[in-house]
Amino acid sequence: MEEFDAETHPHRRLNPLTNEYVLVSPHRTKRPWLGQTEAPQILDLPQYDPACYLCPGNPRSGGQQNPVYEHTYTFVNDFSAVLPAPAPTSPAASHPLLTTRSVHGTCDVLIFHPRHDLTLARLVIPDIERVIEAWIRIYKQRGTQEGIKYVQIFENKGAIMGCSNPHPHGQVWSLSDVPTIAATEIASLRRYSLSDVTDSAAPKGPKGRPCLLCEYAHIEIAAPEAEARVVVKNDRWVAVVPWWATWPFEVLLLPYQRHVPSIADLTEDERVALAEILSKITIKYDNLFSCSFAYSMGIHQRPIPAPESDAADDEDEDNITHLHLHFYPPLLRSASVKKFLVGFELMAEAQRDLTPEQAARKLRACSEVHYLHSN
Amino acid sequence: MEEFDAETHPHRRLNPLTNEYVLVSPHRTKRPWLGQTEAPQILDLPQYDPACYLCPGNPRSGGQQNPVYEHTYTFVNDFSAVLPAPAPTSPAASHPLLTTRSVHGTCDVLIFHPRHDLTLARLVIPDIERVIEAWIRIYKQRGTQEGIKYVQIFENKGAIMGCSNPHPHGQVWSLSDVPTIAATEIASLRRYSLSDVTDSAAPKGPKGRPCLLCEYAHIEIAAPEAEARVVVKNDRWVAVVPWWATWPFEVLLLPYQRHVPSIADLTEDERVALAEILSKITIKYDNLFSCSFAYSMGIHQRPIPAPESDAADDEDEDNITHLHLHFYPPLLRSASVKKFLVGFELMAEAQRDLTPEQAARKLRACSEVHYLHSN
Ligand SMILES: [Zn+2]
Ligand SMILES: [Zn+2]
Repeated sequence: MEEFDAETHPHRRLNPLTNEYVLVSPHRTKRPWLGQTEAPQILDLPQYDPACYLCPGNPRSGGQQNPVYEHTYTFVNDFSAVLPAPAPTSPAASHPLLTTRSVHGTCDVLIFHPRHDLTLARLVIPDIERVIEAWIRIYKQRGTQEGIKYVQIFENKGAIMGCSNPHPHGQVWSLSDVPTIAATEIASLRRYSLSDVTDSAAPKGPKGRPCLLCEYAHIEIAAPEAEARVVVKNDRWVAVVPWWATWPFEVLLLPYQRHVPSIADLTEDERVALAEILSKITIKYDNLFSCSFAYSMGIHQRPIPAPESDAADDEDEDNITHLHLHFYPPLLRSASVKKFLVGFELMAEAQRDLTPEQAARKLRACSEVHYLHSN
Repeated sequence: MEEFDAETHPHRRLNPLTNEYVLVSPHRTKRPWLGQTEAPQILDLPQYDPACYLCPGNPRSGGQQNPVYEHTYTFVNDFSAVLPAPAPTSPAASHPLLTTRSVHGTCDVLIFHPRHDLTLARLVIPDIERVIEAWIRIYKQRGTQEGIKYVQIFENKGAIMGCSNPHPHGQVWSLSDVPTIAATEIASLRRYSLSDVTDSAAPKGPKGRPCLLCEYAHIEIAAPEAEARVVVKNDRWVAVVPWWATWPFEVLLLPYQRHVPSIADLTEDERVALAEILSKITIKYDNLFSCSFAYSMGIHQRPIPAPESDAADDEDEDNITHLHLHFYPPLLRSASVKKFLVGFELMAEAQRDLTPEQAARKLRACSEVHYLHSN
């Protein structure tokens, strides 16, 4: 029989964060595209749009007016998915199959910059640092409010991701419960920290126990060139197309020099290095298909900040979390051909054709100079 | 404090099949729609399309030619995501975080009918029965092939679900592993069967143990009118917008008179009743927004048929599965406004505004006569 080749033979890969498999069908990358294509996006955005509810000085749909802000600007979403405490307590379930939990919290909107047309890929490093500082500020503020158990920072970018407004902005939803996906990942990190995996030179989590993501970053950095999934790396951070990627050009961004539970624990050096690598990833993304690359990005970390920023406390169970950013971009073959997560993927499991190694190779080959700035 | 009201207050509901929560934000149903809208679909499909690779007598993209079939027609997908055995065995993982499993199997395509324009919503009951008989035939055929562990039947319908061809057809992927979502649901059914839930008048699973879905159907049928999630019901089957629905007009279809592990175990009566209720659900769907309603539909059941159709064998662990069909439709407010599963939903957990009870009310109000046939 033929020898197994991950770039030729169908196989499944395990996502150790979610315990879900992804079906990889690399033999199928040459099949013709017969699905729907997307409308091309508008490339020439104005620097200021009088109709944009996020531009400085403009009125919002809720009736309020934005100030003439100079850097980032944060406000509570006019149509928040959750509302502040107190929330009426839901009655006990009439049956265990009809379980309800009350929830409260806040949905903040964070505008990255006054310029309507400047995404992360086009902002200068000091402006990206300001976005990171705003994330840290909101994480600390919301994460210390009574009853808040998780602060979910994310960015949803592009019309094909349902994002209504191209003005660069993200969101922060702070909730009285740890949401499903974060809870699943934390359980996996905990299980791994209690397991007896082979000792390696990777950094360790609290109590000198192994950390799934410290270990994973260590493996990826050491991988031989032919199997490399690293897209870009600097002194502190590494961006990989993970072994278990679901989205064609999915990226996992990790600090790899030490175990870091949250953005509140980042040193100045680590913050600057994060701004630099965020710039590089988003520029490569835009350059891949010469478009403003759509994605959902999210930060997974310690549910809320450690009390008195006591991140080094080995007894604090929450410190087993390892800060990381997920990028889930839908584009597959061009600016107008996206991957659909439907059918088999909704009923059975994620499926992809392009291997993570092939995707990483393509992203590595992209320039680190933005195509709009390179002429 | 106000009393809790599930149609007013944000809350989370537990999906007992997946152990995932969905965040429900009913106060937000009135927010303006600012997201992307979808292109209207072509309403006037021809009965035969010379360019369609699924129409009778036409050539397929793989080069073969369809016969002039009269009812259903099945063939192996020309670009299958998995390939038949033998599959080269993947080597042992170099690290537990880089786990691979070899996989083999077959991807079948099932054309529902020769007519290019007749979806399930427009087929007569005897033609839908033929589709059900084809599902049973493929399930039995593939499910008894060596090494096959799961047969996943599904239909992906509509361009906004990435479906390339409006000619009504479904797919059947037979795999050498039980896929992630099916495995998760089976684990939940097993846990429930071993639990000590309150005794009820619902049918029981093997060994007289409780069945999560027998019990759930029983609760839904007994629910008071104001909280009703039942969309349509006949002598054998009930269709509900489940308590934990993620998609706006999601439907779960269940046999409720007895515990039925798989489609191979259906009696003649149950097959006819399934054809009837499939017709009613899909007609209501089309009538909701006067369009050919897009969805992904999937059948979850016993992974493969019981040996010698020994479905009543209490010792056969796989008989704890309870046959059910999921419908996951993306449309939200009209034929052109769909829900996006992005941002918070990819990073944290599913979120919806419209409650399942509101969705069920809207679907119940839809006529059972197709809008194209009612003039
Ligand atoms: Zn994560
Ligand atoms: Zn199911």
